[in-house]
Amino acid sequence: MPIYRAPVEDTLFVLRDVLGYERYNNLPGFAETPEVLEAVLGESARLAETDMHPLNRTGDVEGCARHEDGSVTTPKGFKKAYRQYREGGWVGLAAPVEHGGQGLPYTLHNAVSEYMVSANMALMMYPGLTQGAIATIITHGSDEQKARWLPNMVDGSWTATMNLTEPHCGTDLGLLRTRATPVGDGSYRISGQKIFISAGEHDLAENIVHLVLARIEGAPKGVKGISLFIVPKFIPDAAGNPVRRNTVACGSLEDKMGIHGNATCVMNYDDAEGHLLGEVNGGLKAMFTMMNEARLGVGLQGLAVAEAAYQNAAAYARDRLQGRSLSGAKAPDKPADPIIVHPDIRRKLMTMKAFNEAGRALLLWTAMQSDIAHRSPDEPDRQAADDLLGLLTPVVKGVLTDKGFDHAVMAQQVFGGHGYIEEHGMSQYVRDARIAMIYEGANGIQALDLVGRKLPLNGGRAVQAFFREVGEFCDENRSDETMAPYTKALKKGLNDLQAATLWLMQNGPRKPDNAGAASTEYMHLFGLVALGYMWGRMVKAAQARLAAGRDDAAFSQNKLVTGRYFMERVMPETTAQLTRISSGADTMMALPAEAF
Amino acid sequence: MPIYRAPVEDTLFVLRDVLGYERYNNLPGFAETPEVLEAVLGESARLAETDMHPLNRTGDVEGCARHEDGSVTTPKGFKKAYRQYREGGWVGLAAPVEHGGQGLPYTLHNAVSEYMVSANMALMMYPGLTQGAIATIITHGSDEQKARWLPNMVDGSWTATMNLTEPHCGTDLGLLRTRATPVGDGSYRISGQKIFISAGEHDLAENIVHLVLARIEGAPKGVKGISLFIVPKFIPDAAGNPVRRNTVACGSLEDKMGIHGNATCVMNYDDAEGHLLGEVNGGLKAMFTMMNEARLGVGLQGLAVAEAAYQNAAAYARDRLQGRSLSGAKAPDKPADPIIVHPDIRRKLMTMKAFNEAGRALLLWTAMQSDIAHRSPDEPDRQAADDLLGLLTPVVKGVLTDKGFDHAVMAQQVFGGHGYIEEHGMSQYVRDARIAMIYEGANGIQALDLVGRKLPLNGGRAVQAFFREVGEFCDENRSDETMAPYTKALKKGLNDLQAATLWLMQNGPRKPDNAGAASTEYMHLFGLVALGYMWGRMVKAAQARLAAGRDDAAFSQNKLVTGRYFMERVMPETTAQLTRISSGADTMMALPAEAF
Repeated sequence: MPIYRAPVEDTLFVLRDVLGYERYNNLPGFAETPEVLEAVLGESARLAETDMHPLNRTGDVEGCARHEDGSVTTPKGFKKAYRQYREGGWVGLAAPVEHGGQGLPYTLHNAVSEYMVSANMALMMYPGLTQGAIATIITHGSDEQKARWLPNMVDGSWTATMNLTEPHCGTDLGLLRTRATPVGDGSYRISGQKIFISAGEHDLAENIVHLVLARIEGAPKGVKGISLFIVPKFIPDAAGNPVRRNTVACGSLEDKMGIHGNATCVMNYDDAEGHLLGEVNGGLKAMFTMMNEARLGVGLQGLAVAEAAYQNAAAYARDRLQGRSLSGAKAPDKPADPIIVHPDIRRKLMTMKAFNEAGRALLLWTAMQSDIAHRSPDEPDRQAADDLLGLLTPVVKGVLTDKGFDHAVMAQQVFGGHGYIEEHGMSQYVRDARIAMIYEGANGIQALDLVGRKLPLNGGRAVQAFFREVGEFCDENRSDETMAPYTKALKKGLNDLQAATLWLMQNGPRKPDNAGAASTEYMHLFGLVALGYMWGRMVKAAQARLAAGRDDAAFSQNKLVTGRYFMERVMPETTAQLTRISSGADTMMALPAEAF
Repeated sequence: MPIYRAPVEDTLFVLRDVLGYERYNNLPGFAETPEVLEAVLGESARLAETDMHPLNRTGDVEGCARHEDGSVTTPKGFKKAYRQYREGGWVGLAAPVEHGGQGLPYTLHNAVSEYMVSANMALMMYPGLTQGAIATIITHGSDEQKARWLPNMVDGSWTATMNLTEPHCGTDLGLLRTRATPVGDGSYRISGQKIFISAGEHDLAENIVHLVLARIEGAPKGVKGISLFIVPKFIPDAAGNPVRRNTVACGSLEDKMGIHGNATCVMNYDDAEGHLLGEVNGGLKAMFTMMNEARLGVGLQGLAVAEAAYQNAAAYARDRLQGRSLSGAKAPDKPADPIIVHPDIRRKLMTMKAFNEAGRALLLWTAMQSDIAHRSPDEPDRQAADDLLGLLTPVVKGVLTDKGFDHAVMAQQVFGGHGYIEEHGMSQYVRDARIAMIYEGANGIQALDLVGRKLPLNGGRAVQAFFREVGEFCDENRSDETMAPYTKALKKGLNDLQAATLWLMQNGPRKPDNAGAASTEYMHLFGLVALGYMWGRMVKAAQARLAAGRDDAAFSQNKLVTGRYFMERVMPETTAQLTRISSGADTMMALPAEAF
C-alpha cells in the first residue's frame, strides 16, 4: 500500500521564506493571518492523506463503469470523498466571494491542490476541470450567465468539462466539425462528437456543465470560425434547479493506460441545447482562458505525482535491505544495509527531491503571478506579473510533466522488480503521470507556445524581465561566499539560455523550422534556469533562517545540500541543450517522409 | 492495430557492410552463403510479422490465467505460434550441432530475435529464457546432464527458467534462503519460494527445466554458499520422457504493469527433486553464465520494442493531418499537413531512428564478440573478443533498455491523446519496455558491473582496447573530409569518456562511493561513445556503398543524414555527463537517511 504525507513544512517554507507570501497582504484574500494559512494547509493535508489517498489504488483497480443508459459510476468511495472535498469549500477556495467562493489566493489553491492530486489524481480531475470553467465564465460570461452557472459550480454541486478534441482534430482546432445552429431564442442546437472528455459523465455531481467548442453555421473556416458554448447535462430552471435532461450523452469510456478512476468519455451531442459564451467566433480566445488555467493545473499534476512516487521510493530505500555500502557496512547488525546507502539509489532520490522542491517553488511562484495580475492595485505590477505568468505557464506545464513522469519512472526503479507489480502502486504513478505530458496541449505544443508566441510577445518584454530578474539575483549574491557556488552555476545556465534565445532571434525568423527544431530543448533549458533560480532563492532563504538562529537548522541545512546537488548534477544539462539548439533544423528535416 | 515490418535491409547492412560478416567464414557456422543469410532473415521476418505480431495486443489484453490446480494457460494463439517457432528450429539456431542445434552464429540468433521480440516480446520470453539455460548446462553440466537435458531444450519441446529472486532478496543473492538437502543418491530436495519467475509455468512446452539457486545445508553464508540446481517440472525417464510430476508448483501469477502475455510466477519448491549443476557452492559462477547471455537478450528487448514503437510513430506521423508546416503548407490539397512536417515530431522520429540503427549495430557487434570468443581458432582473437563482450554487455543491457523505454514513451507521444488509449497499442510498448530496465540486474547494477568490475579487470585491458579501437578509427578517418564531421564529434565524446575514466581511476579507489555515484552516468556516457562509434562505422560503410555506385543510393544517403543527426543532437550529452561524474559523491551522500 503506497504512503503519502503532505509536505506542509516545505510549502510553508516556499510561501513564507521564499516568496514572502505575508508581504502581499495588500492583495485581496492574502490578509489571512499566518494561523489561517497553516490551518488551511493542515486541513487539506488531512483530507488528502486520510480520505483521498486510500482510494487511489482501489480507484485504479476498479476504474469507472458505463451503464446501458449512458450513466457512469465512479469507483467505490469517490462519491463520499468528493462530497467531503465539496463540503469543505475546496472547490471555491480561490473563487470570488461574489460568486460564492472564499476569495483566498489562487496561490493557496495551488498549494492545497498539490496535496490532493498527490493523494488521488484521478479523483481530483473531477473538480479540477471545474476551476478553468469558472475562470472562463467569469471572464467571458454575461452577468446573467454568471448568476445562472457559477454558484453551483463554485460550491461544487456541479462540475464542468472542456470539450475541444474530435476524432480527427486535437491540436489543430481549426479542423473541428461540431455544429451549432441558432434556434432564434438566443440559444443554439449543438451536434457533433467530442472525444477524450475527462469527467464527461459521472455520479459525483448533480449536474455537469460542458464547455463546448463548435462552429456556427456559416462561420469562417479554421480557428476564426469557432465559438464556445455552455451545454449543461441538465437544463436548470430559473432557480438553478436542474430540471430537464439535455441531449448530450456519454457514448463510451476510453480504455486508458492510467487515471482509471477518472471517466474519459466520448461525448455525443445530438441537437443539445447550448448557450453562447463570449463572442460569436471568439471561441478560441475564450478557450485559452480555460486552457491557461488548466495548463498550470496539469503542471501541478506532474509535480504532485512525482512527489508521491518519490516519497514511496524514499521509504522503500530506507526499509529494503540489500547489499552492503561500498564504504563499509552501515547496518552491521542486520543481514544487509538498507539500499539508501548505495550511491545510485541516493542519486535517484536526490534527483527527485531536488526537482520536486524547486518544482513546488516554481509552481507557487507562477501561481502568485496570477494573483498579482488579477488582484494588485498597481498597474505596472499587474502587467509584469501577467507577463511572467504567460511566459512561465508553458514551462511549468511542459517541464514539470516531462520531469514528473521521468521521476515517477525513477521512483519505480528504486523498487526493482517490486516496482513492476501493480500491488505496490508504483506502476500506477507512472501510468497516471504519463497523461500529463499529453493533455491540455501536448508538451511539444507547450514548447512551441513558449518559443513562437511567448518569447516574441511585446518585443520580448516578458523574457527580458525574467533574464533581468535572474541576472540581478546572481549579481547581488555573487560576493556572498555562501551563495557564490550557487549563483555561479545559475549564471552559467542563464548565459546558456540567453545564448539560445539570441540564436533563436537570429535564426528563427529566417527559417521558422529552426524555431520548431529548437523548441523542446529550449523549453527544458528554460525550465532548468527557472528551477535553478528557485534553488538560488530557496538557498538564500535557508541561509537567512540559519543566520536568524531558528531551531530547525536541519531543515535549512538540507536545503543547502539539495540545492548544491541541483547545481552540480542537474544544471550541467544546459550546455548540452544549447549545443543541440544551435545545430538548427537542417539535419532534422533533411530526410524524406518515406525514409522513416 | 499496431504495425510491424522487420528491418531486414538494415540488418543486412550492419552484418555485411559494417561488421564484415562474410569475412568471418573461417569460424564454424559462419560459412553459409549470402543466400542462406538472407533466407534465414527473411523467414524469421515472415514468422515475426505474420504469426507473432498479430498476437501481441491480444496477448496483452487477455494475459495469462492460473487455474486451481496450479496450471497456467497462455493467451489464445500463443501455443500455435510457439509451435511454429519451435518447429522452425529457431530455439536451437545457434546451439551446437552435437546437442541438436544448427550451429549457426549467435550473431544471427540475435538478428532474428530482434524481429521476434519486436513482434511479440511476451511470447518470445518463453523460449528466450531457454537460451541462457542451454548455455549454462553446456558450460557447467556433466556429459550425462548434457545428454539428459539439452536435446529437448534445444529443440524447444522443453523450456527453461532462471530462479534467483526471493521475496526478501533480489540483487543481493547472498541473502537467499531456498534450501537444498542431499538425499544420498546424488540428488537433492529443494524447498523454498522464488518470485518473479518468468515463464515459470505455462502450457507451451512438455516440460519446464528450472535452474534454481539454493543453499545446501551447512554451506557458508553469503554468495559463497549458493549452488545451482536443475529442478524439472516433470522428472524424465532415461529416454527423456517426462514421467513424474515434481513437487514444484506455481503458487500465483503476478499482476504486472506489462508483458501480460508472459506468466510471471511465484514458484513454490516443496522438497522438489533437484540435481546439482556445476560445483557445490559454485552457483553464482554458473548463474553468471546464464545471466550474461540473458543480459544481452534483455538489451535486445530494449532495442526491439523501441523499433516497433518507432515504426508505429513514423506511420502515424505520415498519416495524421494536423496543422500546417512552419515553412508553408506541404499538403495544400488536404485540410492540414501530415504531422511529420513539424520539426518537433521530426525530432522525435530522428532521435528514435538514430538510436535504433546504432543500437542494432552495437547489439550485433557485441554478439559477434561472443561468436569470436567461442569459435575463433586464434587465442588472442578469442581473448580480445571476450574482453569486449564482457565490457559491452552491461552497456548494451543498461543503455539499450533505458533508451528503449524512453523512446517507446517518445513514440507514444507522437500519437498525442490516442497514444494513451490502449487500443492503439502504444501504451503496451511503454509498459512492456519498462521491465527490461529492471530484470536480469536492474540498470543500476549494470552500471556498477561496468564501473566496479569490467573497467578494472586485467588492469583495464578491455577498456584500453576499446579506447584504442575508437581512437584509431577517428585518426584514420579524420583527413577524409566526408568523414571528418563525424569523427570530430566522436573524438570529442571519446575524450570525455577517457577523462571520466581517468577521474574514476583517481577518485574511485580513494572513495568507493565516488565510483558508485558516477556509475549510471558513466554507463550512459560509454553507451553514447559506443553508439557514436557504430555511427562512424555505419557512415563509413555507407560512403563505401556510395563510392561503389550501388543502385540503392537513397539508403546510404539516409545513413549519412541520420548519423549526422546523432552527432549533432545526441553526442553533446557526453560533456554534461562528464561534468556530473566529476562532481563526485560528496553532495549526493551528504543528507541523513531521515531527510528523504
